[in-house]
Amino acid sequence: MRRMVLEGRTGTCEIAVGDGGRSSSSADRRSWSSILHSKGSAVLHSLGASKLVIVTDETVRRLHGARFPDAPVVEIGQGEASKTLTTVASLYERFLELELDRSSFVLAIGGGIVCDVAAFAASTWMRGIPFGLVPTTLIAQADAGIGGKNGVNLREYKNLVGVFRQPSFCLCDSSFLATLPDRELRCGLAEVIKHGAIAERALFEFVEEQAPALLGRDRDALDRVVSDSLQIKTAVVAADETEQGERRKLNFGHTLGHALERIAGLPHGEAVSVGMVLAARLSVHRGMLESKEADRLEALLRRVGLPTSASLDTAAVMDAVRRDKKRQGERIHMALLAELGRAEIVEVGFDEIERSLR
Amino acid sequence: MRRMVLEGRTGTCEIAVGDGGRSSSSADRRSWSSILHSKGSAVLHSLGASKLVIVTDETVRRLHGARFPDAPVVEIGQGEASKTLTTVASLYERFLELELDRSSFVLAIGGGIVCDVAAFAASTWMRGIPFGLVPTTLIAQADAGIGGKNGVNLREYKNLVGVFRQPSFCLCDSSFLATLPDRELRCGLAEVIKHGAIAERALFEFVEEQAPALLGRDRDALDRVVSDSLQIKTAVVAADETEQGERRKLNFGHTLGHALERIAGLPHGEAVSVGMVLAARLSVHRGMLESKEADRLEALLRRVGLPTSASLDTAAVMDAVRRDKKRQGERIHMALLAELGRAEIVEVGFDEIERSLR
Repeated sequence: MRRMVLEGRTGTCEIAVGDGGRSSSSADRRSWSSILHSKGSAVLHSLGASKLVIVTDETVRRLHGARFPDAPVVEIGQGEASKTLTTVASLYERFLELELDRSSFVLAIGGGIVCDVAAFAASTWMRGIPFGLVPTTLIAQADAGIGGKNGVNLREYKNLVGVFRQPSFCLCDSSFLATLPDRELRCGLAEVIKHGAIAERALFEFVEEQAPALLGRDRDALDRVVSDSLQIKTAVVAADETEQGERRKLNFGHTLGHALERIAGLPHGEAVSVGMVLAARLSVHRGMLESKEADRLEALLRRVGLPTSASLDTAAVMDAVRRDKKRQGERIHMALLAELGRAEIVEVGFDEIERSLR
Repeated sequence: MRRMVLEGRTGTCEIAVGDGGRSSSSADRRSWSSILHSKGSAVLHSLGASKLVIVTDETVRRLHGARFPDAPVVEIGQGEASKTLTTVASLYERFLELELDRSSFVLAIGGGIVCDVAAFAASTWMRGIPFGLVPTTLIAQADAGIGGKNGVNLREYKNLVGVFRQPSFCLCDSSFLATLPDRELRCGLAEVIKHGAIAERALFEFVEEQAPALLGRDRDALDRVVSDSLQIKTAVVAADETEQGERRKLNFGHTLGHALERIAGLPHGEAVSVGMVLAARLSVHRGMLESKEADRLEALLRRVGLPTSASLDTAAVMDAVRRDKKRQGERIHMALLAELGRAEIVEVGFDEIERSLR
């Protein structure tokens, strides 16, 4: 098991990557199981809390509920359609019934939506109570669970409502990935490839070499890419928690990806895959990136089974881009590539983005 | 005009107290009017924002709308019943229509409810955009507007949902108080008397001496009590922004006050007045406070026209106290008095509170 610490302005998050059950260290096994596998009041003691509530969804509870610690379980609906203020309000009602106070603890066990919604509800309950995340998908382990962003969508716009706040911990257990559908695994690889493309060529090349092992759910390979992704992300987030500069690199593929997700209804990882291809092409048009680097990115995405193009309604995409949180007047900060392994933040006019889509 | 700065972990808030129009300093007049009285795009320049939206209510807009800067105005409903997630959701919808982004600014002009709701909406829009407060009631100027707390009620429970986040500024202009109904003025004096009782005997004695001037809306007397209240509050908040210790002193009268507000339907200031009398009595029972000090507090509250007792359903009060955010198991941290001018934080059992109510 590998451990990292993210020291943020909004709190300190302890991160553990690996499969607790396979760990050779008894200390690791003990602290891991103290949270996930405790029975009775032991889990409260290890969390330093007087009360615990688990937030999850129906599928995760069915597949993994036997491993949950003893605590009341609140289920939220599945899919992006559940990532709403209405779902948050329903969590508040349950928190009230359960009499959660500032000495209570919220544990989210699930994918990105469960983690985002539960983290936002905990962050705004009594002006913020502690919470921890156990992401059960690759996309949440390699990306969404880390960084202290949370929130919900408003109408069709992603994450318009939310706050920055670090979880107390994030436990990335690769044994959860054994039950993950193939399509979701591939979506997680999109974020892993993104991390390699923006900050670490070696990670990008590892995915190129180990694509069959990763798709075959080899745990060592998965632990490696989750761990490397988190190391990249924690370094970036620690330097720029509230996204004033460096952190914007993590949005590579996301400016157009979010628009595609909304318009084409693609899952997040698939939309980011297409968004990365478009952003790489824009980088080539600007003379920042060699075209063979863009081709290599596109080839790897295709190889792991991710889409690299989508039929686009340019006007609809541009309308969505104009609603992006990163917008500043008629321009937007975008992460573009200088080479595989190095992103740069560039201010791009909406007209230029529109031209690149044609 | 008097200026203070509150340096919080969640931001820095500039505070100005006084009537800009009467200021003898042209620099003060200029910076004051640059925000409140600017026309056209000058206000955006002085805020460093690309877009401004004003949040207020119907009464404040009718009385003071002519003084608002040029900007779209969003009205919310009046009274505690409007301090809900539903109202916040309606603000989000307007923010979306107005295309507010991270370079936009939210200006709340109104009482405590307008300030609390607008601050929570701004703090959670795109994970937090800047906002400023222009409190128009004495209670909001002397207390609610300062400190970086915001939020809304859930069912009948006060402020269960919210975050800690400092406004960019808080402008306390005593000229707004000329139009304030008498009952609201008296409610504001309850918080002023609280600040004197917990931290500054001289302020308590000033209110004793100047009660007729304050009730007659003498601006110099009002500026003095607002200014002293804010100085006490900023010092406490800067030392303990997220209410781990010292800040709890500001809750003097509020533990039972919040319960009374809910059960008896009293306005906040009146409920706090009764709550302070009950907390002072509990302090005497514990041997912490001389009974003549408690009598003196009660006499001053009565003198400014505030209630000092209410008919109580003990079981209902205790049920409400059990939902308090400050609860820890079967006990609660309460601010009690050691003397007029000095509060102490004491852990009190629910049984002891219940006995004191009989």
